[in-house]
Amino acid sequence: MADPSQQLKTITFLIETAPRIGSKLTEVTASSAGARTQEQVRQRNLSEVLRRVHRDGMVSRAALGRSTGLNRSTIMDLTAELAAAGLVREGVPVGRGQAGRPSIVVMPEQGTLYGLAFDVAVDRLVAARVGLGGRVLERREAVRARAGVDLGDVVGVLAAFGRELVAGAGPDALCVGVGASYCGMIRRADGMVRYGPQLGWVDQAFGAELAAGLGLGLAVEVGNEAHLGAIAEHVRGVGSGVGDLIYLHGDVGVGGGIIVGGELLDGDGGYGCELGHMLVNPFDGRPCLCGSRGCLEAEVGEEALLEYAGRSGELVGREGIRAVVGLAGAGDDRARDAVDRVGDWLGVGVVNLINLFNPALVVFGGMLRDVYPGVAACVRARIDAHVLPVSREPVRLAVTALGDDTTLAGAAELAFARLLDDPLRTLAALRRPVPSRVRG
Amino acid sequence: MADPSQQLKTITFLIETAPRIGSKLTEVTASSAGARTQEQVRQRNLSEVLRRVHRDGMVSRAALGRSTGLNRSTIMDLTAELAAAGLVREGVPVGRGQAGRPSIVVMPEQGTLYGLAFDVAVDRLVAARVGLGGRVLERREAVRARAGVDLGDVVGVLAAFGRELVAGAGPDALCVGVGASYCGMIRRADGMVRYGPQLGWVDQAFGAELAAGLGLGLAVEVGNEAHLGAIAEHVRGVGSGVGDLIYLHGDVGVGGGIIVGGELLDGDGGYGCELGHMLVNPFDGRPCLCGSRGCLEAEVGEEALLEYAGRSGELVGREGIRAVVGLAGAGDDRARDAVDRVGDWLGVGVVNLINLFNPALVVFGGMLRDVYPGVAACVRARIDAHVLPVSREPVRLAVTALGDDTTLAGAAELAFARLLDDPLRTLAALRRPVPSRVRG
Repeated sequence: MADPSQQLKTITFLIETAPRIGSKLTEVTASSAGARTQEQVRQRNLSEVLRRVHRDGMVSRAALGRSTGLNRSTIMDLTAELAAAGLVREGVPVGRGQAGRPSIVVMPEQGTLYGLAFDVAVDRLVAARVGLGGRVLERREAVRARAGVDLGDVVGVLAAFGRELVAGAGPDALCVGVGASYCGMIRRADGMVRYGPQLGWVDQAFGAELAAGLGLGLAVEVGNEAHLGAIAEHVRGVGSGVGDLIYLHGDVGVGGGIIVGGELLDGDGGYGCELGHMLVNPFDGRPCLCGSRGCLEAEVGEEALLEYAGRSGELVGREGIRAVVGLAGAGDDRARDAVDRVGDWLGVGVVNLINLFNPALVVFGGMLRDVYPGVAACVRARIDAHVLPVSREPVRLAVTALGDDTTLAGAAELAFARLLDDPLRTLAALRRPVPSRVRG
Repeated sequence: MADPSQQLKTITFLIETAPRIGSKLTEVTASSAGARTQEQVRQRNLSEVLRRVHRDGMVSRAALGRSTGLNRSTIMDLTAELAAAGLVREGVPVGRGQAGRPSIVVMPEQGTLYGLAFDVAVDRLVAARVGLGGRVLERREAVRARAGVDLGDVVGVLAAFGRELVAGAGPDALCVGVGASYCGMIRRADGMVRYGPQLGWVDQAFGAELAAGLGLGLAVEVGNEAHLGAIAEHVRGVGSGVGDLIYLHGDVGVGGGIIVGGELLDGDGGYGCELGHMLVNPFDGRPCLCGSRGCLEAEVGEEALLEYAGRSGELVGREGIRAVVGLAGAGDDRARDAVDRVGDWLGVGVVNLINLFNPALVVFGGMLRDVYPGVAACVRARIDAHVLPVSREPVRLAVTALGDDTTLAGAAELAFARLLDDPLRTLAALRRPVPSRVRG
């Protein structure tokens, strides 16, 4: 498509000023760079275009040009190359009567490429085959007992689900990556669960075991559920386009993910953002599974709510929480009091987070999605009383847009991360025959 | 120095993966890029080399090569260009008996270039002429009454100091930038103090007024004192080489700065990191100047300590704090109790910060530099009781390495920021005759 007579071909170089999801890129043009660099430039541009197609689902070439800053012919070259590799499809949307030139759109290829996403929550295991673009193509789910679940059991169930999903995809489809969300602290390098108190796991090699159980020759990228939830809500949820947000995920415990300038904060060792273990009640706190007392998760978790409502032992899990919030709304005094107490502590935690991070948005997910509507007024009251005006005025509060699939969607983002970083080379490596020995 | 016969000159391109202070850079080589890009590459490399010389004070060419990843001849070219511009000096250190090739070192030029740094703290005003490399060359300081200080008074004193410092530098010296530290919330764009409760300032145009008062035709870059303290301790203090740290600054209030991955966190509107307004005592808290109750700064600030010690009204300021901590150490029961109470609340705040940020280091500055030695055991006890093991084990606690000049040093970093970002063009613009009308 480029003019072949052009001796000094101008290539366009995108420099990311930071490895930020969805950030605006700075453009620098360089003419006739050497083969190696030109190749690097092209790979980077392919990555950026594919990332946008993956994020937006269906996007016109014109919009790709605007958001990347690349010119029309460069975009055409890039999308053609991605289409030739089987990563995207191009087409003209039907049913839109248009005068003049038709607007070509680019969509992710969904039939032949997929990621596997797993979600280990306290009371359910989910596995899904997810298409590029983030659509769940097929899923398996198991409700499970909470206590005494060991690594082998969890991996056994998930690996069996995974193998079924791979078989269902057909022989021509290619799995491009595997991601998993886990309700605990994860060592990034190898998917080791350092600490997962809800399941009683300490130093369990979850990522490695699941990879072995799947037998696909692919590593399993594991992330903390709340970190992944934050990423998912940022990329394709209520926080889409919002650079600074906080995601609070309730399960039996409470976790959190913090996105600053489009990037997840995860601290020096990758274990930061333990929002659930903020000490909100320093002197008279409820005991927490972590061994401390007065942590946010101890004060606002499922157990606190059910106990305050006098329903401990009788009600349990998400259904129990919905029931108590429902009773409070219907005028039950004890339920109302329970919801208000939990809401007040949640407000204390949220106040601290807003004063610390000055976010544009706070998102409530997991069981907090059910709790939040009942406690919004309490949380707002704490914010009004304690948050500095410059941070208070702009902040919005919302529940997840992805519902209960927020953490699963985050795991899918992990599954696609390598492909999105370097599309053609990752694809070439995946299509190379796998040696008989499974690679970790 | 480069071979002129080399037709296809290889240039080296540093891509910053993030605009992070002191971060390791990724190197990409490009051959014979167009004039514009080659120029950009060179400017960027000059910036990185000068930044390292500024940070390290005296550094060998070999060490510059190692830390930037640039080759020997490129480093020689760059340091020669910086030397020709009068930004650095090169030389062989004397007094080191060495066999073989002498190791050339590069030092910042201090005689002819300087920045002006100002520090507005609650009870003192400081102004300094600071050399490239961070050395304070000359300073002025005024102790002042705390109450009823209006913008005009503060600007009047500081501008007079500034003019004296400029006069003292001599006619051949060039002021390359002006930075100021202020104990309040600052709007980055124009140095507006949005909220400074200790001085009772709301929406005061401090940056613009000080710039006008100095009459140098330079803008004054203003930052929050705790944010600047965090940067200074990270660049040249106890946190040098530490990517993730938290700086807690005590004045009458308490502020903080958080460095994550080498970058200051400052939130969506630039007003984040209000560590002093974490709600540590949600129900029975002391009133805070911000209008809330139970904020960290209300519970650990000067007033709390002096009041608990029964010395309110009698003792005041840093001297008062040192006296109470001294009495506690000498066995005075009431002082001991006061110090322990403050230490316990400080511990609650520090616990939350460690669980949230998983930092490698927590630094105490300002009046907390005096308090910390007396409360280290209390803080440690809270950490042991409440911080998750993965975050607890690696974290260190320390007082500032720059003493009381931490915030001033941070202001100096602001003063040099533009020069370090683009050395030659900034210098050229500064040396251009200034129009008679003062530029804001």
